[in-house]
Amino acid sequence: MRYTDNKVQELKIAYIGGGSRGWAWKLMSDLALEPALSGTVYLYDIDHEAAKSNEIIGNRIHTIEGGRDNFVYKTADTLAEAAANADFVIISILPGTFDEMEVDVHAPEEYGIYQSVGDTAGPGGTIRALRCLPMIEKIAHAVAEHCPDAWVINYTNPMSMCMRMLYRVFPKIKAFGCCHEVFGTQRFLAQVVTEELGIEEVLREDIKVNVVGINHFTWLTDAHYRNADIYPLYRQYCEKHWADGIPVSEEIKKCWMNYFRSEEKVKMDLFLRFGVIAAAGDRHLAEFCPGAWYLKNPETVAKWGFNLTPVHWRKQDLASRLEKSSRLCSGEEVFALAPSGEEGVQQMKAILGLGDLVTNVNLPNRGQIPNLPFDAVVETNARFTSDDVRPVFAGNVPQNVVGLMAATVANQENTVAAVLERNLDRAFVSFLHDPLMTVGIEDARTLYQKMLKGTEKYLGDYQK
Amino acid sequence: MRYTDNKVQELKIAYIGGGSRGWAWKLMSDLALEPALSGTVYLYDIDHEAAKSNEIIGNRIHTIEGGRDNFVYKTADTLAEAAANADFVIISILPGTFDEMEVDVHAPEEYGIYQSVGDTAGPGGTIRALRCLPMIEKIAHAVAEHCPDAWVINYTNPMSMCMRMLYRVFPKIKAFGCCHEVFGTQRFLAQVVTEELGIEEVLREDIKVNVVGINHFTWLTDAHYRNADIYPLYRQYCEKHWADGIPVSEEIKKCWMNYFRSEEKVKMDLFLRFGVIAAAGDRHLAEFCPGAWYLKNPETVAKWGFNLTPVHWRKQDLASRLEKSSRLCSGEEVFALAPSGEEGVQQMKAILGLGDLVTNVNLPNRGQIPNLPFDAVVETNARFTSDDVRPVFAGNVPQNVVGLMAATVANQENTVAAVLERNLDRAFVSFLHDPLMTVGIEDARTLYQKMLKGTEKYLGDYQK
Amino acid sequence: MRYTDNKVQELKIAYIGGGSRGWAWKLMSDLALEPALSGTVYLYDIDHEAAKSNEIIGNRIHTIEGGRDNFVYKTADTLAEAAANADFVIISILPGTFDEMEVDVHAPEEYGIYQSVGDTAGPGGTIRALRCLPMIEKIAHAVAEHCPDAWVINYTNPMSMCMRMLYRVFPKIKAFGCCHEVFGTQRFLAQVVTEELGIEEVLREDIKVNVVGINHFTWLTDAHYRNADIYPLYRQYCEKHWADGIPVSEEIKKCWMNYFRSEEKVKMDLFLRFGVIAAAGDRHLAEFCPGAWYLKNPETVAKWGFNLTPVHWRKQDLASRLEKSSRLCSGEEVFALAPSGEEGVQQMKAILGLGDLVTNVNLPNRGQIPNLPFDAVVETNARFTSDDVRPVFAGNVPQNVVGLMAATVANQENTVAAVLERNLDRAFVSFLHDPLMTVGIEDARTLYQKMLKGTEKYLGDYQK
Amino acid sequence: MRYTDNKVQELKIAYIGGGSRGWAWKLMSDLALEPALSGTVYLYDIDHEAAKSNEIIGNRIHTIEGGRDNFVYKTADTLAEAAANADFVIISILPGTFDEMEVDVHAPEEYGIYQSVGDTAGPGGTIRALRCLPMIEKIAHAVAEHCPDAWVINYTNPMSMCMRMLYRVFPKIKAFGCCHEVFGTQRFLAQVVTEELGIEEVLREDIKVNVVGINHFTWLTDAHYRNADIYPLYRQYCEKHWADGIPVSEEIKKCWMNYFRSEEKVKMDLFLRFGVIAAAGDRHLAEFCPGAWYLKNPETVAKWGFNLTPVHWRKQDLASRLEKSSRLCSGEEVFALAPSGEEGVQQMKAILGLGDLVTNVNLPNRGQIPNLPFDAVVETNARFTSDDVRPVFAGNVPQNVVGLMAATVANQENTVAAVLERNLDRAFVSFLHDPLMTVGIEDARTLYQKMLKGTEKYLGDYQK
Repeated sequence: MRYTDNKVQELKIAYIGGGSRGWAWKLMSDLALEPALSGTVYLYDIDHEAAKSNEIIGNRIHTIEGGRDNFVYKTADTLAEAAANADFVIISILPGTFDEMEVDVHAPEEYGIYQSVGDTAGPGGTIRALRCLPMIEKIAHAVAEHCPDAWVINYTNPMSMCMRMLYRVFPKIKAFGCCHEVFGTQRFLAQVVTEELGIEEVLREDIKVNVVGINHFTWLTDAHYRNADIYPLYRQYCEKHWADGIPVSEEIKKCWMNYFRSEEKVKMDLFLRFGVIAAAGDRHLAEFCPGAWYLKNPETVAKWGFNLTPVHWRKQDLASRLEKSSRLCSGEEVFALAPSGEEGVQQMKAILGLGDLVTNVNLPNRGQIPNLPFDAVVETNARFTSDDVRPVFAGNVPQNVVGLMAATVANQENTVAAVLERNLDRAFVSFLHDPLMTVGIEDARTLYQKMLKGTEKYLGDYQK
Repeated sequence: MRYTDNKVQELKIAYIGGGSRGWAWKLMSDLALEPALSGTVYLYDIDHEAAKSNEIIGNRIHTIEGGRDNFVYKTADTLAEAAANADFVIISILPGTFDEMEVDVHAPEEYGIYQSVGDTAGPGGTIRALRCLPMIEKIAHAVAEHCPDAWVINYTNPMSMCMRMLYRVFPKIKAFGCCHEVFGTQRFLAQVVTEELGIEEVLREDIKVNVVGINHFTWLTDAHYRNADIYPLYRQYCEKHWADGIPVSEEIKKCWMNYFRSEEKVKMDLFLRFGVIAAAGDRHLAEFCPGAWYLKNPETVAKWGFNLTPVHWRKQDLASRLEKSSRLCSGEEVFALAPSGEEGVQQMKAILGLGDLVTNVNLPNRGQIPNLPFDAVVETNARFTSDDVRPVFAGNVPQNVVGLMAATVANQENTVAAVLERNLDRAFVSFLHDPLMTVGIEDARTLYQKMLKGTEKYLGDYQK
Repeated sequence: MRYTDNKVQELKIAYIGGGSRGWAWKLMSDLALEPALSGTVYLYDIDHEAAKSNEIIGNRIHTIEGGRDNFVYKTADTLAEAAANADFVIISILPGTFDEMEVDVHAPEEYGIYQSVGDTAGPGGTIRALRCLPMIEKIAHAVAEHCPDAWVINYTNPMSMCMRMLYRVFPKIKAFGCCHEVFGTQRFLAQVVTEELGIEEVLREDIKVNVVGINHFTWLTDAHYRNADIYPLYRQYCEKHWADGIPVSEEIKKCWMNYFRSEEKVKMDLFLRFGVIAAAGDRHLAEFCPGAWYLKNPETVAKWGFNLTPVHWRKQDLASRLEKSSRLCSGEEVFALAPSGEEGVQQMKAILGLGDLVTNVNLPNRGQIPNLPFDAVVETNARFTSDDVRPVFAGNVPQNVVGLMAATVANQENTVAAVLERNLDRAFVSFLHDPLMTVGIEDARTLYQKMLKGTEKYLGDYQK
Repeated sequence: MRYTDNKVQELKIAYIGGGSRGWAWKLMSDLALEPALSGTVYLYDIDHEAAKSNEIIGNRIHTIEGGRDNFVYKTADTLAEAAANADFVIISILPGTFDEMEVDVHAPEEYGIYQSVGDTAGPGGTIRALRCLPMIEKIAHAVAEHCPDAWVINYTNPMSMCMRMLYRVFPKIKAFGCCHEVFGTQRFLAQVVTEELGIEEVLREDIKVNVVGINHFTWLTDAHYRNADIYPLYRQYCEKHWADGIPVSEEIKKCWMNYFRSEEKVKMDLFLRFGVIAAAGDRHLAEFCPGAWYLKNPETVAKWGFNLTPVHWRKQDLASRLEKSSRLCSGEEVFALAPSGEEGVQQMKAILGLGDLVTNVNLPNRGQIPNLPFDAVVETNARFTSDDVRPVFAGNVPQNVVGLMAATVANQENTVAAVLERNLDRAFVSFLHDPLMTVGIEDARTLYQKMLKGTEKYLGDYQK
């Protein structure tokens, strides 16, 4: 890595999960559009072919109109090769396939347990952690060995537990975890400002927020636009819209995005009950609440204006992305260069000394949230500057909200400890004690066994 | 108060709830049997007649064989009169009547929510707190005004929230809360020692334990008899007895004690799952766990070898205690002098400098349990000595257990804050988020309204 | 206050100490140069004439070339009038006169105690606190009563104790304390970067630092320029320059600035001993170290390449500023409009939602420095955004440095408590235990009495 | 180890420093007088002959009138042999000889630095730590390897640093550190009770105290006798006696005990200044205060009614103990069986489940003193019971006192870290920053070099 004249050259970026047909393409696009950076991206994936395809796609970008050759893409044969002396390590892996995820999400439905996402909280979140965390553990060891000074950016879910594992294995790791859920709420609050104050074109970045909580269950204890306090505006807004929700267009309802639609009713309901702004998509928020609240059954979900995301749709979507990948490789389709709206490249620039940034990320709790456990992974604002990412003091989770996340934080800590011990009995404690787990101990045990079975290929080194 | 020659004379004890026909009689007995103490007990009760009866009963004790006149009993007309310059204040009140408690315990059953006690946790615990905490608040103000240096001993449930209220109102109060649930578990462990080591006559006091948790949901992270570690013994014992439980005699099953019986199956189940000794009666332990575990329905309760305590039994029992009271007043029945097994008098002696004591009590968390919130009321060992009660450092609640109590602690904090604000909407957050609350938001709201109705006489000064 | 179109109008700023002929003029200049703000500045000063002069000077600014009439200046007759509904309150007072300061600084010299500044640490710092803190207490009450939502910016020394007093009196105050000492070190590090890396024109703002410590005794645990770590560069630099120091020009040595000159030898010495970058002027750093280190006697001071600032010079300087003031009032001299290099106006803009900022300020410790006491006032980076100033997590003061400030932090806490009690005996504990206090108890007591005498006009309401 | 019938047999005790002619004899005596314990004591000492002599002396005890053969003494050839499967490890070593100690104590006198003890604080304390801590480090490794479940009792000075080293090397060690200084103050307070209340024969054990602080600089925030608060009594007493001190008998002044005599003037002075009871011998207390207070020069020391303990006296005393040792070995002199007044054997019994105990010991700070650093070694009460020693929550060091120990605690942490790194430059920071170090940097460096020279035999593996 070499700095000159407000540019950094010869960067080495290791992309773990480099065969990704989602996040990887967004990053490629953002990197190509960034004039201040250049270097090499090493793509590592256990699906070697997928990485290879992305290598081809990435190296073709400079041929596109507006494309540049600032980054070269190389497939790495091993994790070690990718990690060796990397400046940045990006972790964006799919732990297992959608076959396993299908079990994670849908097996509990037989027991009346519905999950709107199933990759973070709920029984699906725990099972996904059992598959995913040993992979993260391996990556943490690789970082410790091959690039201990690298900055590690994680995008993989379950976010909090992945981050916790990275720090448990290698406490000096310089890692943070990124998620765009808060951005979505900032956009929603921008609409609130527009409606309540009549100001047009309010930018997401201008909604200034103080974030407290854990990933996908984040709350805003302050929200301002310029010198205006959004809290009273939001109250007026919620009182108007709580009953009917924010309408979703017919267009969206008809297309695939219907699975992700939200009438924001959960968010507004939480605000009216707790007096604090919940700041993630309703699909995520619902999964952290007791099962009987928003996810009792499909009718309840419908009533609250959001949707369950079925894994068969994810499979279908993957098939279409696979086709797109081969069209991009062959040149049949041209890679679309456009800013992704994600902040990864800006974060890298800030770390490289090319412009400071404050944004929300996931980091171990050093006291930024005094009433969540020290060392647990929490989401708050952090300041990014030269070789440095530090949390901004966020303050307590409000007293009447903290109980909603306290058990989950404890379950996450317990699951990570269970994975380190490869102890499925210990992990069952988290599974059983999840807010969505509305069945008794015996049924929970039966369901657990069934779900372990569904993911057994990835549990080879657990104690039996 | 005057000390001479290992005796303390002229003590003034204020007994709030002095009309009690349970705890009050135990204390009278223990005081009469204690040679080192003498003085006056002021009995204050909103049921003035009940206090009057106890005055008569108390003042007759010296006429009994073995009875002494070391304590004089006086009915106080006002709280202020009782509290004025008291050395000790004992709080043992029944908030409301069993009519209100009947609603607390049984109204939720229509919604499939069963409570084995209903005075601490669960929806009943929250509603009881709404009635009880304003009374405790008033007592705390009286202590601050009339006897700020007095030691305050609370026996009233919900214990943790009563204690929290005392400290929120008067932070310098010298108060602790006593409960005998841990003693019961020590007795059970004494049986374990007898069975596993073949040692007869193991005393409860010789089971040395380290207590962590919150009242009625306490756990033992260490347990020894002499130099023997009870943990491995208990594991053997539980593996033998978990399936069938500890048999309860037919005799007990036939009498009133059947409502309190326990085959210790919940306790052993929790041990086998979490690897930590739960230390309260099964009826209490069950109420802190998710509703589907041990309290799903009466069949589940039966299967786990304990019983629901119906309030009609309490009413019946009260009637018989009322009759007994009048017999004791009239002299028809002779007051039975016998050690109660409670530690109140020993605690008072220790505070008076007549012999140190270490036992478990409820106190604000000053760091004795680092992973529960600072200032929340927790139960651990404490050292009692001259004018001093200090928690012994207890350490963390084990990582896989802490989640089970984290939400409850947060709910308790929220309920106390809600009562201070007289804010029923805020209290609904705790009600809704209780581990036993297995129904959805709307049903919970309906149930809440119904239960508030059942207790409305005591909610006069809440915001509507 | 009214926001439109990236501008804020009708601001009300209360300037306490508004007769100042230093900081006040800087602020006037910065405000006049700021296109985004307008409103009224209320000048309050116990020296009413001084405030009146500044009113005249301020209201004449728009007549200067480049001057604007965005701010109107008004003399306030009372603190209450200045504070009423203010948006910002600026505190920049001189507690007492230079006659009292002369005693603060020079009386200890008879006992062999030399102070290079005498307004923060050392015996002079304690005595100044006894004069100053009751004034700050009064201001805090005024803020609580007249403008509880105002943002309060303190520039007055002793900074840490003034800030602590503000928060002790009114815990919800939105106050921070500003000091430019770290800026000076950033400028020095910019020179280091230039010398070691050959990069010209390194801006102070581009020296990215992590600040830990207390005001005037701040340390940098990280320092970067772009992606270059300054630590190894600084080591090379110090090894080269430690012995001879950084030469001060003959020009400076001849003029008044000689009193403030520094060869940076103290700073480099501290770095070579502790391995951490000390970040304040050498005159300040020296005062926090044991008296025998850098301030043993004038020869030692000279050897370490800095100077003692005599109060007779301050008096002389004040006289010339008084003359200047009357020339400015009369129009004889034209007010010089130029950016001051201070950040006050930028901070206000950030708080008003006109552009975020991260900079170092003094705030109560909420955990941003885990190994200094919670609630003590510490200096770290903080993030400024809409109606919000929050510390950035700074981490521990390095283990081998923290001892140097631990006693001082404790002394400051004790002094503030002593002033709240108006208890001179309690304050003597801090006086006696200061690192510069090299004499025995009796001499210290004599000196204390003498210094109290020197400041007695301001000690009217202390207990005798 | 085997428990039966309230006795523990077959104990293995490892005594490191087993050649001791002081503590070892006290322990032998106490063990012989204890009917409940029996077993073997392994004596290990680098002075093998000394251990051998104690073996002979110990094994002869049963021949004395009243002596018993419950313990057998064996000299261990290696640390490993002594430690192997020990139940208790006692550490009571002399690091180096009195030749080294002579330099520790007297070399600083040339620079006007006087130390009344020189084994804990002051320059002597730091140098002693450099010799001692590597030995302790080795012992900690031996415990971790050979008897990880043993209870370790340390008597060696510098106590706090020895304890800290044990825990840094082996964090799971079950170690505590014992010191009898607080006992002395309890005895003094018993005299106060006798004088002020006219009560004769007040037992030390009946002075109930709450201890906060660090070893040899402990303070009592509460002190009671029965139900009487000693604080107001002590104030009266100090006001009477502060000026003249408590007379020391002519007899004592003439004998060797003169070196340890104290008129308690330092203690009373500290009380009158800080309002808190200091609880160690004046010789120790003085060393933690700034050098100019009580140790400025021999005249000041005399004025404050205590004495400097010269090492030539220690040498002389050792010679007489060596003679005594050979007389005891040969049988010429009969070993005197008498209770030592120390609590080691009672502590062992409590740990073995033979009777609980609360007493003051040195333990890592787990929060028992919230305003001293977590993990630093502090002295407070602790509860001893079966296989368990836990601190009692002690509360904050009073605000006006904590500054006096804050720098010392930081220096101790730094010294331990320096020894772990074998880094003499880092240790110099503690040396230089000691409260007794009244000289400048250059003189301090010269003195440090000289003192290192005096102890160089023990510094073999430090970095040069």
